[in-house]
Amino acid sequence: MNNQEAALKIPYGTRDYLPAEAADKRRVESAIAAAFAAWGYDEVVTPTIEYLDNLTMGSGAALEPHMFKLFDKDNRTLALRHEMTTPIARLAASRLKDASLPLRLSYISDVYRYEQAQAGRQCEFFQAGVELMGSDNAAADAEVIALAIRTIVAAGLDDFTVCLGQVNYIRAVLRELGLDDEGRRLVEKAMEKHDLVGLEKIARELELPETAAEIIMELPVLHGGPELLAKAETLTGSEDAQAAISNLKNIYALLDDYGVADRVVFDLGVIRDFGYYTGMVFEAYAPGLGFPLAGGGRYDNLLSDFGRPCPATGFALGIDRLMLAKERQGQGAVRVARDVYVGYGTGNSSEAIRKAMELRAEGKTVLTGLSSETRAEAEAEAKAQLAAELVYIG
Amino acid sequence: MNNQEAALKIPYGTRDYLPAEAADKRRVESAIAAAFAAWGYDEVVTPTIEYLDNLTMGSGAALEPHMFKLFDKDNRTLALRHEMTTPIARLAASRLKDASLPLRLSYISDVYRYEQAQAGRQCEFFQAGVELMGSDNAAADAEVIALAIRTIVAAGLDDFTVCLGQVNYIRAVLRELGLDDEGRRLVEKAMEKHDLVGLEKIARELELPETAAEIIMELPVLHGGPELLAKAETLTGSEDAQAAISNLKNIYALLDDYGVADRVVFDLGVIRDFGYYTGMVFEAYAPGLGFPLAGGGRYDNLLSDFGRPCPATGFALGIDRLMLAKERQGQGAVRVARDVYVGYGTGNSSEAIRKAMELRAEGKTVLTGLSSETRAEAEAEAKAQLAAELVYIG
Repeated sequence: MNNQEAALKIPYGTRDYLPAEAADKRRVESAIAAAFAAWGYDEVVTPTIEYLDNLTMGSGAALEPHMFKLFDKDNRTLALRHEMTTPIARLAASRLKDASLPLRLSYISDVYRYEQAQAGRQCEFFQAGVELMGSDNAAADAEVIALAIRTIVAAGLDDFTVCLGQVNYIRAVLRELGLDDEGRRLVEKAMEKHDLVGLEKIARELELPETAAEIIMELPVLHGGPELLAKAETLTGSEDAQAAISNLKNIYALLDDYGVADRVVFDLGVIRDFGYYTGMVFEAYAPGLGFPLAGGGRYDNLLSDFGRPCPATGFALGIDRLMLAKERQGQGAVRVARDVYVGYGTGNSSEAIRKAMELRAEGKTVLTGLSSETRAEAEAEAKAQLAAELVYIG
Repeated sequence: MNNQEAALKIPYGTRDYLPAEAADKRRVESAIAAAFAAWGYDEVVTPTIEYLDNLTMGSGAALEPHMFKLFDKDNRTLALRHEMTTPIARLAASRLKDASLPLRLSYISDVYRYEQAQAGRQCEFFQAGVELMGSDNAAADAEVIALAIRTIVAAGLDDFTVCLGQVNYIRAVLRELGLDDEGRRLVEKAMEKHDLVGLEKIARELELPETAAEIIMELPVLHGGPELLAKAETLTGSEDAQAAISNLKNIYALLDDYGVADRVVFDLGVIRDFGYYTGMVFEAYAPGLGFPLAGGGRYDNLLSDFGRPCPATGFALGIDRLMLAKERQGQGAVRVARDVYVGYGTGNSSEAIRKAMELRAEGKTVLTGLSSETRAEAEAEAKAQLAAELVYIG
């Protein structure tokens, strides 16, 4: 590879967005920003670079190997943010600590994680999301789920499903079955990966009684409509597990009021990859996309790590994934077109420029020729530049 | 400092944008994006992280100490982009190498440089700009200057001035005066810093003839209206310098056609801080802002470094600086307000949610209560959340 070839490369897991993709990205982000604003969520912008210690506070050290690290002039370890919930918790506990609750915040940001790159999973990617802080009511959970659904629709995707779960159900059932912390961790890990074979092996190795093993194998397949909750209730006598089910029923009733319940199925096996969730969790899936489009849940303890104890709930939506899902549903990016190309013959550049400015004032997208040309040349140029109309000043 | 206090810190030279600032940033960026689109510039998005070798290709090693560096898994040096012209040149020479010329591209991006931080100069900051590739005509230069001016106005700033220069004028005059490369570099460095005392010292140390020293001391003060060009012509017999003046006259005539010439003054001392400029250069200044709001110029050699020889011109606009200038001109960010707060009494949450969805469908920004409350409580909450109107479902 010579120098010039090397000069054209970009780092692993990053990408360039060409005009049609970048235009689609801007349209999607504008639709998302409008949806967030309509529900009263205020956008905030936080630094791309934060202290590593702060970023790992919420999601734990588990994600540290996935972070892009660098060092400041005093040799303190910094990292590119790997998600936005933790920085926003920091902000809510510092410069926004006197803002009245509930606090509704939103963001549209790039985030960074070392991952095995593939379509829809890059190391630099774009996320939009909201955080609703200050309420532990089901009403707050229902609001963020409903907003996630309405936002995805507003951004142009029609075919998707939301899977709704509750981390306390699984935790309570596993505790009830007598699993210790390590056993619970192994089971949750296998469930997070949807690894049924692994789960069976773990159940065997833990030497659980047969009924307990059967219940554990039921957990990842607790997936379905409202009738599923009745079944989930029969699997456990734990009060915490029953409370989790009751919480889901309340949320679902509110989602029905929002007119979005038909998008939602229950999936008690949903376990999100951040350790900070404490209640309902959800993920949105689109056909043909191997990972969630969006996900979120309740995290009632994260803010206390930053010195402002406060219940909270929220979600994040993958913008690249949304764009990929749209593309796979035939709603992908289309080449940008322009309204008018203004060409001109020798000596007519002044008039051409004035004409172009007039057309722009009328709201048209206008390209101007950069040198005088014949009408035939101008016609060819208008075509090459994808302009719908030629105005020629001869 | 305890752990919680430490957890609230952000790295040197970074900042959080609170709701009012973030809303202003989004408004400004939307206005900029609309202006760029109206002139036929296609947005592109490039990675935040690039190979260091590529980023230093255009602007030279001089800026390397200002870059945020990190390492990939193969231990190659990466850096956070410090500007966008070089990445876009890379893109034009790689995935867009078959796009027909002229190629009009734009961006709205965050960029990173270690700097002594102050208001309007952060280490992470936001830039919008355009690159027009494929034409060496004055028409191309005039287009980007006119677009810069119209964009700043569209973004809400009224009071600013564009200083227009030409790097070949200074270079030719200094060559004509017999300065070698090192002498020219010293003089240009002092001019870039507007360091008149330093310039006088350099002229003395170079032991130049008195007339040459006088001419050098004139260069930084060649600042004024179109009459200045006549004066600049008298200082030199160099053909290159005369060609530079003639180029400026052509550009100015076109700026008059664009209706923006009244914003423009000539300043032959404008020397931009990137080494890649080869023709006209310009900077926009607003009163009370100690550094340029925007700047750009012609760079005809940069693309050949990436294997696609092609003349080009463009500009970058500092979004934070624009926001700061607006604030100093009394056009700063205002707290976001909401149209409606929907509160409800016990048992009325369903109706309240449906009412909120109706109001949103009408285009209103709406907050919903997260628990039942009395009318008096709802009134207080509507006020606390800055909602203009209360709808109470009792």
